[in-house]
Amino acid sequence: MNRLAARIRSGDRRALARGLSAVENRAQGADDLLAALHAPEPSALRIGITGAPGAGKSTLADCVAKRLRGQGATVAILAVDPSSPFSGGAILGDRVRMQRHHGDPGVFIRSMAARGQLGGLGPAVVDALALLEASGFDAVVIETAGVGQSEVDVAQLAVTVAVVLVPTLGDDIQAAKAGIMEIADLFVINKADLPGADELERQVLAMTSLIPDGQPKPPILRTVATRCEGVEVLVDELERSGQTGTGAAYWKRLLLGRISGELRSMLASGPEWGADLDRAAEAVASGQLNPYTYLRDALGRLRQQWKP
Amino acid sequence: MNRLAARIRSGDRRALARGLSAVENRAQGADDLLAALHAPEPSALRIGITGAPGAGKSTLADCVAKRLRGQGATVAILAVDPSSPFSGGAILGDRVRMQRHHGDPGVFIRSMAARGQLGGLGPAVVDALALLEASGFDAVVIETAGVGQSEVDVAQLAVTVAVVLVPTLGDDIQAAKAGIMEIADLFVINKADLPGADELERQVLAMTSLIPDGQPKPPILRTVATRCEGVEVLVDELERSGQTGTGAAYWKRLLLGRISGELRSMLASGPEWGADLDRAAEAVASGQLNPYTYLRDALGRLRQQWKP
Repeated sequence: MNRLAARIRSGDRRALARGLSAVENRAQGADDLLAALHAPEPSALRIGITGAPGAGKSTLADCVAKRLRGQGATVAILAVDPSSPFSGGAILGDRVRMQRHHGDPGVFIRSMAARGQLGGLGPAVVDALALLEASGFDAVVIETAGVGQSEVDVAQLAVTVAVVLVPTLGDDIQAAKAGIMEIADLFVINKADLPGADELERQVLAMTSLIPDGQPKPPILRTVATRCEGVEVLVDELERSGQTGTGAAYWKRLLLGRISGELRSMLASGPEWGADLDRAAEAVASGQLNPYTYLRDALGRLRQQWKP
Repeated sequence: MNRLAARIRSGDRRALARGLSAVENRAQGADDLLAALHAPEPSALRIGITGAPGAGKSTLADCVAKRLRGQGATVAILAVDPSSPFSGGAILGDRVRMQRHHGDPGVFIRSMAARGQLGGLGPAVVDALALLEASGFDAVVIETAGVGQSEVDVAQLAVTVAVVLVPTLGDDIQAAKAGIMEIADLFVINKADLPGADELERQVLAMTSLIPDGQPKPPILRTVATRCEGVEVLVDELERSGQTGTGAAYWKRLLLGRISGELRSMLASGPEWGADLDRAAEAVASGQLNPYTYLRDALGRLRQQWKP
């Protein structure tokens, strides 16, 4: 894999795509590749764009990429879809989307299914970031559909987070995502030419007014992404906001996510634990075993035996 | 805890509420309580109601409860909010909602935060079902906001699933939840008095027409939940559809979810693993350790040592 690492470092896009597939599918050798390409701090401007489905995140991400390209930066867009059951990248969609950038080799687009258990962003997103940065991109835009936990997870990727809201979506939909308010470095009111934009801005202002003094208040910007309106100011703000670095908490989440994911696989289908759980589940289904008694014993053994 | 179990079995509502808090908070003794109350098969009619925020799930669940009460059945409503960071039940909201049932003791309402990692439904929902059924309810209605993975998880609870759609929410919002289509035992077009209901029905019909012959096609019903219109037919269909039982797969998910959740806690904050990960994360942050090298070693040890 070290040849692949060298090719990725040299900026080879085909090698990058292969590496991304390897980490996404947890292929043999993926950890060696990641070990070879590891850097303790982000080397790119990391931008997170999140919001409800239909808010115009992809269009906005494309505008941001275009603007950054105009400034001479190379840009990777990582579109993470936590509701997609498909892995390996939506190749066709990426190609169609790439055409918006006229095949510009300074833009790279990749779709990823979220591999986290139960709808969040998996550790594979952190791995993908590492590969994209090793490959030399000046900026990485991470787009995540705001469903479930994913929009909160994005804030843990050491990114500057733009939360996209639109006047057309009902309050109840956007308000359902209360957690989203706490992660915004800035708010974007997209489709700002639609009626309701003023009202939405008032609502967001009311929310941000609750932020205690001394803490930064996220600015509220307006865009019309279909025409890339308002994007110059947005990019200025994103660059100014400045992401947080990757401290110990960032790395602990990576280690924790990866190890617990591996343990879950072992439990689900490993030759020993998987078989043990299958036997236990059969016995419970046939009424011969009380699952809670089994859990008490199994967890008791785990707590005793399981040491780092 | 066995006294508490006996009180729950006798139908004591205060004991039930205490038991639900115990399992939700994973309190000491919760597993003993669950072991005492375990039954291998569901004793209640289990109904799942899922859909996007704003679809009217709560109102519809209340109508369904009212109708079932009219038939003489006792009903528990479990409202699971996977996006809520709050645990322990939304007491005030439950009380306000209970007033819709005129304080009828044959209806019990409980809100629960989802305790699954990363946005899905946690094993605590399965535990809550066990308690509600032990307490003697004839029917349990589980309401889940359709965000992230939760609407797919609800189908794993051995319930009859009604997926609620509304004409007012954009296609892109509802279509984003492709997975939802595969779990529906029936579709409900709520707010059916709004324009667009016919068009929505056509879309749902087009989707269900893709279901291979021989497999059941979910019926499509219309309701106006604010007036409980269409709910008699809905309840008939729910009763007819007949839930699946709890086979080995159901119990394996419970065991798997619980054990992997416990392992995750040990990794995150246990005295040994937690401390080890903290040290490793600090070393990575200060540039002294490559996280992928650490993972390779730690996972290698786990695979060797960790046996049931």
